[in-house]
This record gives sequence, structure tokens and C-alpha cells, in this order.
Amino acid sequence: VTQPAQPTQPTRPTPQPQQPQQPQPGDKGTVAVIGLGLIGGSLARDLAARGWRVLAADRDGHALAEAAAEGVITGTFHVGAEGPGDASGVQSHSGAQAHSSARSPASGSERAVEVLAAASLVIVATPVGTTPGVLRWLARVTPNSTIITDTGSTKRSIMAAAAAAGLAQRFVGGHPMAGDHRSGWGAAREDLFMDAPVWLCAARAAPALAAVQALWLAVGARPSVIDADDHDRLVAWSSHLPQLVSSALGRTLHDAGLDRSRLGPGGRDVTRLAGSDPAMWADILVDNADVVTPALAALLNELTRLHRHVMDRDVAAITAALAAARDWAGSAT
Amino acid sequence: VTQPAQPTQPTRPTPQPQQPQQPQPGDKGTVAVIGLGLIGGSLARDLAARGWRVLAADRDGHALAEAAAEGVITGTFHVGAEGPGDASGVQSHSGAQAHSSARSPASGSERAVEVLAAASLVIVATPVGTTPGVLRWLARVTPNSTIITDTGSTKRSIMAAAAAAGLAQRFVGGHPMAGDHRSGWGAAREDLFMDAPVWLCAARAAPALAAVQALWLAVGARPSVIDADDHDRLVAWSSHLPQLVSSALGRTLHDAGLDRSRLGPGGRDVTRLAGSDPAMWADILVDNADVVTPALAALLNELTRLHRHVMDRDVAAITAALAAARDWAGSAT
Repeated sequence: VTQPAQPTQPTRPTPQPQQPQQPQPGDKGTVAVIGLGLIGGSLARDLAARGWRVLAADRDGHALAEAAAEGVITGTFHVGAEGPGDASGVQSHSGAQAHSSARSPASGSERAVEVLAAASLVIVATPVGTTPGVLRWLARVTPNSTIITDTGSTKRSIMAAAAAAGLAQRFVGGHPMAGDHRSGWGAAREDLFMDAPVWLCAARAAPALAAVQALWLAVGARPSVIDADDHDRLVAWSSHLPQLVSSALGRTLHDAGLDRSRLGPGGRDVTRLAGSDPAMWADILVDNADVVTPALAALLNELTRLHRHVMDRDVAAITAALAAARDWAGSAT
Repeated sequence: VTQPAQPTQPTRPTPQPQQPQQPQPGDKGTVAVIGLGLIGGSLARDLAARGWRVLAADRDGHALAEAAAEGVITGTFHVGAEGPGDASGVQSHSGAQAHSSARSPASGSERAVEVLAAASLVIVATPVGTTPGVLRWLARVTPNSTIITDTGSTKRSIMAAAAAAGLAQRFVGGHPMAGDHRSGWGAAREDLFMDAPVWLCAARAAPALAAVQALWLAVGARPSVIDADDHDRLVAWSSHLPQLVSSALGRTLHDAGLDRSRLGPGGRDVTRLAGSDPAMWADILVDNADVVTPALAALLNELTRLHRHVMDRDVAAITAALAAARDWAGSAT
């Protein structure tokens, strides 16, 4: 088993006299990525480009084949069945192209043990409802020295699942604030995480935390440590609420028979997130329901107030409401 | 008075043997722009670059001075006082820099008559609440041959004001679906209208309509004729509702103490319009209140349903709602 990536000098390979310009495949170590969707696939691309050897699992054989053909990944494995989070959920959300290879779960896990033995770090980039099952499976098939992290949009349930699976010492929860409404390997691209905030949650996993911080720094992101409770409350407002608003507006315009091509650039901005993956988001919203609900209630109150002001043709009240929003938005892009 | 721009060959000047490459200032005719904000200023830039001579009025002397220094405009005039839509509302929304030059309204109008006599076309790019007063003033100070158009976000009240001012024969209502949350001359830029839909409303003004269509075609936009009632209902959903949603979300996040820097790219998209000009939008929303109100009620219903589904942790119902929105959004950008 190779050692975890060193937290120092994470962005550049040690220069080698014979090949000083380019990192060589594998000279930074080996990582395994489970789920080659927008996030996992983009991370695989970035890491491969920076000298990591990347192994991958995905329910979608086409995504694996394409990633291999492009030289992004050098090996694949199957994620074994493990309760509710079984291999059928390990997918890149590529939609119609998704399919399962015929296999025996037992032999799949045996081969996965062999393949994963080479990885110092495993990145779980599956839908949040799938991740707990994958963590239970990883607890069985990886050595105790393997560091495990994830990229899910919620952290409380995943930290709890990691602890329950006995992974507290070597699991670091992660959530990159990157990506967009697109999904699947086809949307994965290099430099997706450049300057992106990444939230990290660690129970008592200091060495593992350093390795995962180094990983994100290496791909240009800005990792910060946060408590899982604080994280989930924060993203309920900063991420889950905007998603709900954009989708609700999209559905409202759909029901009104209004084609998206009728919108100007501003309206297209507001409705862009409506194109996000429905199943992935339903998972996130249910997992975070207790803190999403009050955020949505606050927005409903605000919209109800605006509705009344517009009905009343109250220019002063509307101006004040819009001015508060504008002060908040400032000149941000 | 020069003739209106010809509807044929609107995008290119007639080649001149001695200067075949560049349009010469004024060789396409002279237009007057009232309000050098994002829309009026961008249109002035485009028209000047395409060989029109551009005259301008704006409450903000700095905007006029900058436009003149850049060679975008070759003359200025003051809009005279005319009831509720007096000159104090003729502004580029440049905020703190706005100021009024000391002047006598009478002498201002006299000089305006002279300056405007050179313009075959006047473009009123003021806030919608200001436009009716400007139209009444223009009816007094411009010759009957002068074509007048506007760029306001609502059309019923403006068409009615034009008719009441006796301008039905020579007024064409216009609404470019371009621009963004920014405002003022500082945000004005060339090619803002490239490929943008532009709605045009004309009472019984066929020759004027052809001239205004040619104007928008010349700057790369896609003009379509629409009934004013249909227009206002359409934009209530396609433009005014997205603005309200973005502002309501911005204010909700403000009240929750959440800085915009905490948002990812998707959340920044949804809240971008929250940076729009509050007074300009309050004007629009009140003017269009009768059709904005039901659109906002429909969105409230949809959000209320989603709120209940999230409270109930109803994965199937949430997925179905998000899927309807995604089908609508498609793969649009």
C-alpha cells in the first residue's frame, strides 16, 4: 500500500532529471474515485493531470471506458452490494447510457480488494443517499491505512455513517462548492474546483484531514474545516434554497406554458439550476429536510410580503424590499 | 430633418468609394437618446459605431460628459419639465454621481427643439414611470416627422401615454430583452443587443415600425411585433417573476446573515438579478401589477407544495417536481 499524499508541496511533483516538465502518472500516489459524475469525474481529471494514478468505479460502463480511453483512469473496480447503498446507486447520473456490467458481487469485491490496495485515498463521489452503503462496503474492503473522503452536499448523515462503519479515524467528509446544473462524466472537466470553497468535516482524523486538505489544494480549491451541523445549516440556505427556488420557478413557468427561450439573460440565470439532476437533489433535500424547511419558510414569508406589496402597488415598500436585496448582492458577479 | 433609417440594408453603410471600410459619423442619420443608462447607453454606443450621429439627454452630467469624451455622442439637450415625468426622472441610474445642471426649463426646451430637429428618431430609455411625461414633452418639441420609440419593460401604459399625447402615428413601443442586473452609463457596452429578442408594439404606425425594426436589426437584435397586452402578460412571467424571485432570495439570505461569497456558482446565478436597480424595478412591478400578481401567486403555490414535500421527506414528490422543472430547463445554457 502506498502512503497518503503528503500535505506539503501538493501542487507540483518532485522534479525528475529525465522528465522535468510533466508529472508522471502515479508519481503522486494512487487514488480511487467512486462515481465519475460531474464532481468525481472532474476530480479524476484534475488528479490525473497532476500526476496521480486514478482508479475508478461507476455503474456506467461507458463513463469508465471513456475515462480509460482518455487516459484519465488506469484501472476500474466494482463496488460490492452493501444494503441500501448498493452498487446500483453508484452512478455518474449519465442517464440513459447507464448500465450495469454482469458480475458476481463476491468476485467483484475480491477484485476490488486487490485494486483498492494500491490506493492511499478513496474519494466517494456518489449521491448522498448512496454514500453510507459505499462507506460500509469500504470499511470491509480497504486496509486501515486507506484514507476515505466524500464530496456529498450534506455532512451530518455521512459523518454519522462513517463513524458507524468504524471509519472515524480515517474518514474526512468533504463538500466542494463547485459544479453546476449539469451532471455526469460528459460534464466533467478540468479546473472545475479552481478557487472553489471546499468544506471539510473531520471527527478525530488529523492525519487524514491533512491529506484531504492537500488533495483539494492540489486542484486549486480552498478547503476550510467546518462542523457538520454548521455545514448542513449553512448549505440549506446557501445552496439548497437557491436550488429549490430555481426549480420552483422553472416548474411555474412550465405550467404557464412559457418556453425558456422567451427569457432574457437575467431570467436564464435564475432558472439555470432548474436543470439540475432531480434524483440527486431529492436525496439531498430529504437528507437535510430539518434545516431546509425553515429556510424555505423564510423565503415563502418574503415572497408573500412582496406579493402583497405588488397587489397594493406600494412603490415605497417594493423599493425598500428590492433595495435590501441589492445591498446584499452588491456588485458581486 | 433627415429621413428615418431605411429598413433595407440596415446593418451596413452604403460603401463609399473613398472610405469603404468605416461608416462615417452621421452618414446613417441622426438619433436622439433620452437616458444614457445600461440600455440607452449601449444603444448609443452601437449606433455611433455604425455611423449614426447620436444626441443625448441625461440627468447625469457625468454620463453625458463621458459619452461625449468617448465620441459616442455629438450633442446634448435637456428634457423639459412635463408633469409627473419631468426631467428629474430622466436619469441613467448612475446613483451618487447623478446631478442636475442648473437651467431654465423654458430655455432648455427652446434649445432642445433646435437640437432635436436634427434627429429622425428619438429613443426614450428612461424608467417606465418617467416615460409618459417624456412622451408628452416630445409631442410638443419634435416635428411630426420624428419617429419616437422607447425601451421600457412594460408596454400597455406607455402605448396609452403615447396615444394620449397624440403620438400614435409615430410612436413604436420597444422592449429589448437584454441587459442584466447592472445599470447606468458605466455598465453600457457595445453589442449588448446582439441576438437579443426585442418586442415592438405599434398602434397604427407602419412606416415608424419599419424604421424601428431597422434600428434594432442594425444592432444585431431580433425584433418581433407583439400586442401590448400580450407583451405585458408575457414579461410578467418571463422577466418580472424571475426578478422578484431573485430579489426575495437575496433578501432572505441577507436576513439569515449569509454573505453572498458563501454561495457556489449556481447560487450566484440565482441571486444575480437581486443586484438590479430597486427604483427602476419598483416602477415596472407597480405598472404591471395586475399581471405580475397572478404569476407570483402561482410561484407561491409551487413553493408551498415543495415546502410540504420537503417537510414530509417525500422523495418521490420532490423528484417529480424537480424533474418537471428539469424537463422545462432542458440543456439550455
